[in-house]
Amino acid sequence: MLVVQSTKLIQVFGFFVVIAMTAVNWELKNLMGIIVFFPAVSPAERIRFILGEEDDGPPPPQLFTELDELLSVDGQELEWKETSRWIKFEEKVEKGGERWSKPHVATLSLHSLMELKAFIEKGTVKLDMEGTTLPQLTIIDSQVESGQLKASLKEKVMYTLLRKHRHQTKKSNFRSLADIGKSVSSASRLFSSQENGKKKKHISRLPPDAEASNVLVGEVDFLEAPFVAFVRLQQAVMLGALTEVPVPTRFLFILLGPKGKAKSYREVGRAIATLMSDEVFHDIAYKAKDRQDLLAGIDEFLDEVIVLPPGEWDPDIRIEPPKSLPSSDKRSALIHGIIQINKVISHEVGEELQWTKKFCGGLVLDVKRKLPFFASDFVDALHIQSLSAILFIYLGTVTNAITFGGLLGDATENMQGVLESFLGTALAGALFCLLAGQPLTILSSTGPVLVFERLLFTFSRDNDFDYLEFRLWIGLWSGIFCLVLVATDASFLVQYFTRFTEEGFSALISFIFIYDAFKKMIKLAHHNPINTNFNSDLVTQYDCRCIPGTNAVSRLPQPVNITWASLTKHECEKFGGQLVGEVCEFVPDITLMSFILFFGTYTCSMGLKTFKTSRFFPTTVRKLISDFAIIFTILLFCGVDALVGVNTPKLIVPSEFKPTSPHRGWFIAPFGGNPWWVYLAAALPALLVTILIFMDQQITAVIINRKEHKLKKGAGYHLDLFWVAILMIVCSFMGLPWYVAATVISIAHIDSLKMETQTSAPGEQPKFLGVREQRVTGICVFLLTGLSVFMAPILKFIPMPVLYGVFLYMGVASLKGVQFMDRLQLLLMPAKHQPDLIYLRHVPQRRIHLFTFIQALCLALLWILKSTVAAIVFPVMILALVAVRKAMDYVFSQHDLGYLDDVIPEKDKKKKEDEKKKKNKKKGSIDSEMEFVSDNLLVRRNVLSWSSSIRSSPSTKQSVSVNVVAPSSHSLTTPTMTIFPL
Amino acid sequence: MLVVQSTKLIQVFGFFVVIAMTAVNWELKNLMGIIVFFPAVSPAERIRFILGEEDDGPPPPQLFTELDELLSVDGQELEWKETSRWIKFEEKVEKGGERWSKPHVATLSLHSLMELKAFIEKGTVKLDMEGTTLPQLTIIDSQVESGQLKASLKEKVMYTLLRKHRHQTKKSNFRSLADIGKSVSSASRLFSSQENGKKKKHISRLPPDAEASNVLVGEVDFLEAPFVAFVRLQQAVMLGALTEVPVPTRFLFILLGPKGKAKSYREVGRAIATLMSDEVFHDIAYKAKDRQDLLAGIDEFLDEVIVLPPGEWDPDIRIEPPKSLPSSDKRSALIHGIIQINKVISHEVGEELQWTKKFCGGLVLDVKRKLPFFASDFVDALHIQSLSAILFIYLGTVTNAITFGGLLGDATENMQGVLESFLGTALAGALFCLLAGQPLTILSSTGPVLVFERLLFTFSRDNDFDYLEFRLWIGLWSGIFCLVLVATDASFLVQYFTRFTEEGFSALISFIFIYDAFKKMIKLAHHNPINTNFNSDLVTQYDCRCIPGTNAVSRLPQPVNITWASLTKHECEKFGGQLVGEVCEFVPDITLMSFILFFGTYTCSMGLKTFKTSRFFPTTVRKLISDFAIIFTILLFCGVDALVGVNTPKLIVPSEFKPTSPHRGWFIAPFGGNPWWVYLAAALPALLVTILIFMDQQITAVIINRKEHKLKKGAGYHLDLFWVAILMIVCSFMGLPWYVAATVISIAHIDSLKMETQTSAPGEQPKFLGVREQRVTGICVFLLTGLSVFMAPILKFIPMPVLYGVFLYMGVASLKGVQFMDRLQLLLMPAKHQPDLIYLRHVPQRRIHLFTFIQALCLALLWILKSTVAAIVFPVMILALVAVRKAMDYVFSQHDLGYLDDVIPEKDKKKKEDEKKKKNKKKGSIDSEMEFVSDNLLVRRNVLSWSSSIRSSPSTKQSVSVNVVAPSSHSLTTPTMTIFPL
Repeated sequence: MLVVQSTKLIQVFGFFVVIAMTAVNWELKNLMGIIVFFPAVSPAERIRFILGEEDDGPPPPQLFTELDELLSVDGQELEWKETSRWIKFEEKVEKGGERWSKPHVATLSLHSLMELKAFIEKGTVKLDMEGTTLPQLTIIDSQVESGQLKASLKEKVMYTLLRKHRHQTKKSNFRSLADIGKSVSSASRLFSSQENGKKKKHISRLPPDAEASNVLVGEVDFLEAPFVAFVRLQQAVMLGALTEVPVPTRFLFILLGPKGKAKSYREVGRAIATLMSDEVFHDIAYKAKDRQDLLAGIDEFLDEVIVLPPGEWDPDIRIEPPKSLPSSDKRSALIHGIIQINKVISHEVGEELQWTKKFCGGLVLDVKRKLPFFASDFVDALHIQSLSAILFIYLGTVTNAITFGGLLGDATENMQGVLESFLGTALAGALFCLLAGQPLTILSSTGPVLVFERLLFTFSRDNDFDYLEFRLWIGLWSGIFCLVLVATDASFLVQYFTRFTEEGFSALISFIFIYDAFKKMIKLAHHNPINTNFNSDLVTQYDCRCIPGTNAVSRLPQPVNITWASLTKHECEKFGGQLVGEVCEFVPDITLMSFILFFGTYTCSMGLKTFKTSRFFPTTVRKLISDFAIIFTILLFCGVDALVGVNTPKLIVPSEFKPTSPHRGWFIAPFGGNPWWVYLAAALPALLVTILIFMDQQITAVIINRKEHKLKKGAGYHLDLFWVAILMIVCSFMGLPWYVAATVISIAHIDSLKMETQTSAPGEQPKFLGVREQRVTGICVFLLTGLSVFMAPILKFIPMPVLYGVFLYMGVASLKGVQFMDRLQLLLMPAKHQPDLIYLRHVPQRRIHLFTFIQALCLALLWILKSTVAAIVFPVMILALVAVRKAMDYVFSQHDLGYLDDVIPEKDKKKKEDEKKKKNKKKGSIDSEMEFVSDNLLVRRNVLSWSSSIRSSPSTKQSVSVNVVAPSSHSLTTPTMTIFPL
Repeated sequence: MLVVQSTKLIQVFGFFVVIAMTAVNWELKNLMGIIVFFPAVSPAERIRFILGEEDDGPPPPQLFTELDELLSVDGQELEWKETSRWIKFEEKVEKGGERWSKPHVATLSLHSLMELKAFIEKGTVKLDMEGTTLPQLTIIDSQVESGQLKASLKEKVMYTLLRKHRHQTKKSNFRSLADIGKSVSSASRLFSSQENGKKKKHISRLPPDAEASNVLVGEVDFLEAPFVAFVRLQQAVMLGALTEVPVPTRFLFILLGPKGKAKSYREVGRAIATLMSDEVFHDIAYKAKDRQDLLAGIDEFLDEVIVLPPGEWDPDIRIEPPKSLPSSDKRSALIHGIIQINKVISHEVGEELQWTKKFCGGLVLDVKRKLPFFASDFVDALHIQSLSAILFIYLGTVTNAITFGGLLGDATENMQGVLESFLGTALAGALFCLLAGQPLTILSSTGPVLVFERLLFTFSRDNDFDYLEFRLWIGLWSGIFCLVLVATDASFLVQYFTRFTEEGFSALISFIFIYDAFKKMIKLAHHNPINTNFNSDLVTQYDCRCIPGTNAVSRLPQPVNITWASLTKHECEKFGGQLVGEVCEFVPDITLMSFILFFGTYTCSMGLKTFKTSRFFPTTVRKLISDFAIIFTILLFCGVDALVGVNTPKLIVPSEFKPTSPHRGWFIAPFGGNPWWVYLAAALPALLVTILIFMDQQITAVIINRKEHKLKKGAGYHLDLFWVAILMIVCSFMGLPWYVAATVISIAHIDSLKMETQTSAPGEQPKFLGVREQRVTGICVFLLTGLSVFMAPILKFIPMPVLYGVFLYMGVASLKGVQFMDRLQLLLMPAKHQPDLIYLRHVPQRRIHLFTFIQALCLALLWILKSTVAAIVFPVMILALVAVRKAMDYVFSQHDLGYLDDVIPEKDKKKKEDEKKKKNKKKGSIDSEMEFVSDNLLVRRNVLSWSSSIRSSPSTKQSVSVNVVAPSSHSLTTPTMTIFPL
């Protein structure tokens, strides 16, 4: 016993002496470096060197990292148990929960990173080792050779390494490395690659060329000093059940140590696993030539880590992966010494909007731009996502067609009704999607057009004009005006539509939606007044009788059987009778039931729409419910209506395929209805319509073509307008509604076609790639809409209040994400509760409020205008928004406008001048991004070596001159400088 | 020009030589330490030594830290601009926003921390300096003396330091240090202390003894090497406008450096400011004796920091302060070498529940325990919070009294009605709060009692018993039984009520609430059927006439004027007439209006209740809206009801102060109404009532007295039950409802009286201190309730559907926070979307689901029981829950139950045995918390000195023996060990 102890003591002592002597050796070398005054090559430079070498090769494959700990489960023999895994973020096996935790950001201790560094410094590092089984890997032998491991322990270490592996996903998946060692060959690799497809599903979307890095840590009782090895295999090899998923292993990190420090070993294991999942270190690990490269990688990592103070954060809190990750570009730019220049916020004018100054120049360019994509516009649609988009947008379009058709019928006394709406939508939409410049745009009747139609109909009726003929001429004139705009490239003016105008316009449209929904409901309530004096006990006293009118002779029809009392209310009024009684003017239940349906529809569709972000059910189910929210709601409340059975007003749909009104046909004759001068006078309202159409179409087009949608096939403003004009003329002749781009539904179309990165690591937010740009979804949507005319027998079950509820929903929903609304809300929030919006960081709050106030004032004025007799000039006034915005250049600085709005093109120059001026003023007060980057580079060179980085390799090249370090020599940083072999 | 450059070169060279030589000096000393093999004293030990010295003195005051940067604002002269501040978390001045950011966790770079360490190592450190103005502080002189600063630059440095200071809160607050330097005296300190009260409000609640630490960083063009000073003043001194708030300055950190590194200096400034706001370093800064102490503090901080990998987190994201901070105890325990033992989860039985085995032993102990607090129970209420609690709970109690009164009146045909409910609530509640053991409990009629009353009334009516007399005898018997339970200390059984029973019971009560609310509404709809065939056009054809009955002779009263047709519906039915007509049985609008009110009330109160967590309006306004949510909602929907004017059923309140029913008085005679044997037979239902009352009262008491409420005055289960029994007898004699503790409203009472830490730093979550335990709020609430009887004329405007809506709200709201409901929801959630609940980390999901399933099954069985004729034994069956829970000990491990439920007392022992067994099995596989802590201590000693900690002080004592370090000597950590002077 005593002998054993003293042996141990000697071992410990010996170990210390070795360390101490080596340390002296290193330190002296370090000191030499300082004394002879050769400054160090920084790790960043070294890394640049490591990574730069093989830049032309393919990028290293993705890594799946697994941490296995040596544990005895349920009192059994020791085995390797998987306790964590990484693709990008850490996932832990919950101790008792027997399941994977949510992916989270790995919080490490500095301590474990330093230990890891020391282990890498002292342990075995084998790069590009050959071998296909673990016993073939000569890690242990090399440690025995170097004297780090006693030969007697060799067997025991190997025995431990070959213990069984237990993975989290499949509890019975027992296979020891020993079994595998024997059988791993090309055959077993074949076998496992067959399994690939099935088993890889366990873990979310690993690319087929992914490789594994296995981290094995544990405590054993026979070791007195840790056994450490970092191995990179020449070729990734299937080491059997070593890894949870059948991905071949490329890296192995083994740490076996004496008893009592399992927790510490685990932390070191987590540290190396986190490093392996780090983008930069991952590349270094693949390209490292020797131990020093790895150490430089760790130093680079350490230099970039983010440190949280211990008193301000609890390490037990699992940090959810951030929504957006720092781009690795910045880091690799630092490494590669590239200096980035701060982006200047500017409103880039795409080539689509350049003024060609030629006749039809823009149109020709549009056709030239879009034609090459025409074939791909059909091929690109071949994806299951297109089907779901078709269904979703179809439902939206049908709802829209019904709602607008109903409202249009109401506004024009059924001269245009639901059937015209369906037919027109199908015809115009399909043609537009097939031929227009931006086939993602969905045409629809829109609010402003509806407003105009209502005004036009009232005007025609009041002045005894033939409405449809008058409208045809307005349409013709408008179409011609639009074609003139196309020919003159007028769409280049679109670049003056900044966010201010866009949002003002769309907010106004939304407000009109909401207002109209309520107005409709109030009108409905007036038609069906509630009897507030009703007392059920007095029901015997209530009645309503029809008696002969006092001031008119009886006009009863001749058949004798009919008496006044037998007449219905309508007949009684018709024949001049008088209704007498307490309950004549009241209609029970209908108003209240309508309000229940109205608010119910709104609340339910809002609720279902946000169901996507709830925790319940799998993502697909939630997405389905959310996508079909409105159709579910409509069905639900049609059901409620049918169940209660109250006779609420329903959607009037013709049961035959003929114009809603019997007074018209499918072709409107251009002459005969109105006096000749009306044909010319129609040019005046047509001017208004033209402005309206142009604004409505192009504002939506600007929103659709926004840069953040990452469209690749380009826009076609001129081509779009061309087809809108043509369709307008066609629709006018057929007496169908006019169609322009519908903002809300077009955005929904874009949203449903968004593409995201496929192989994202658990916890990582998928990256937005772009939109599936094609013509098929749009065409299909409108063909389906056309076929829906035959659904008329079903549609008549839909109560109008439900549609008003949908209307309200659409109005409110389209206000979401509008910055103007956000800013309005800010007015009610105390500063400390405001969300961390980017413009709040950069623009003073009172400037923001002033901006909001001006915008609100504009909208209020437009609203008042809309409500008065001047309503007909409403479209012109929207143009005034652009003027107001231009005037604001004199009130706000371009810096503030850059954050709150876009910058108007010609102001770009002014802005740059502004900035120049400012810079001169500030002179060195706040350093620009560029200064920072270059500055940082210098600092890093000097300070990166803050840790006691002790280098054992001989210094061969010391070519970097004094001057590199000199600029930052004033800093009093730790003067231990490092010498790298180059 | 050349001369200047060469001078610079020489300076730089000289500087390097100095550094190098010093480094050599230090390194050699370090090496000596290793070679002569005296291991280092770890920073942790040193810190323990620093902090341990003056443990008896008062704790150091709180620090307000301000970072000022040298900038030129608007092209003006250089001035010091406040850019960040700390109390605990960092608040930045938004660059363009001109306002404070939200408090957030300061993310630092390792780089800046290392630079800071180097600066502290090399710069001037002056501890306990004297002086009251900046010029008096001889920092600059000492640097000149030591040769670190050229004498010629002295003036320039002083000039820079005395530049104006510009703070964030007040833009015009310009005062340069130079001005202040002259005038700072006792007079100006007097002046500023007068300002204190007003100005300290700017920043949230700084304690009066707070001190400031000022960090000044900036770049200047005349320096070639950084000028660094860390100063602690002997006495905190008002340095004028140096600090944003008039707090005297105790610490100064100055960093002036050459041009081009402003960003780097700022980061160093942030690092020292973060350190100063760190709990441990803050203490060290106050107690440090020399530079080495500060360095040891930095090392300790570095060793505890949490590291986020650069690729997984974006440093631009501001991390919100965590809800719970790591307790600094753990860290200081580490420092002080205290080893914590992992807490074993156990169900602690308080002394209140120990079985005394004496007659009335528990009651006597309760009185003895509570009596000393009786005076303080009135004094402790003197706080504005009590007023708000009174108002809130009053509103709740009144709503409850109205709702239950209405329902009770409905259940007992007004034998007990709203007036009795008010009177009884006031009487019982006030008396209970004055004298009971736990005055925070609010008495109320509760669901189970209501269920019993309804059954009792139906039974009495069906069997022709005198209901009130029968009830009196049941009450008498129950009261006596309860007193027997008090005398025999039966309340000790309460300890068997685990979470399983508590939650099962309260969930069932909540379900009954919800179910009853809907049942009431459906009943209302049946009373007021909707005419679904109504066609407003046919209104002339509808009527309802009263004609003489066919099968009865006319029973019309004699006065001749009255005809059958003139009778009301009620009269017609009364006199045997027949109602003929299409609309006789229908009541328009009432049902639909009732549903609008019902759902409206529910939705609105739910919405307003959650308004507290919205971003709008200041916290106080939101809290007000949230606290008064229900009363606001009731008022709103009474208004809606009045506006629409439909004759919805209203709350029937007597307009006089007399029993609701004319058939009873205020005293119930005990004899005469029923046969003699009924008096004895009443004992049987009384037994049921006793169990019901006991369960209902004690389960609520357990919930109120839960450990997490941190009650300090102890519970009084026996005393509570005593008063419940007495009050029951009194109420029975007066024909008032019986009262027991109401779970929902008592919890609301507790919540409204919660105390939290006052002086919390911005961003820091306030800590829960306990509850304002007193009797005044309860007494006031019930006195007010009593006075509300005179509000009867107002109460009759409240529609019943609104009360049913409140009922529904109460049912749903009381389900919140019930773990059983959380677990039910888990059933619908995919594992990856489940919230990070503690039991999900430790218990396998299928065990959780099994537990939930058993609980749900129990409740389903109880529900079925409740709905059948066996309903009267319902209270007994609740006891069965306890039995089921005991049986579950054989199904689930104590470990799992410990997380999902509490552990039943006598199982504690079994559990510990279980754990022992497990430990033996696992033998070294997973180390316990204790092992970790001790283990960690050892590792830290060795690894803490990973950074190139270079010590300049002479080694005087080297007494720590080899053995301390030896156990961890196997680790391959950097062997640079440090020697501290002790």
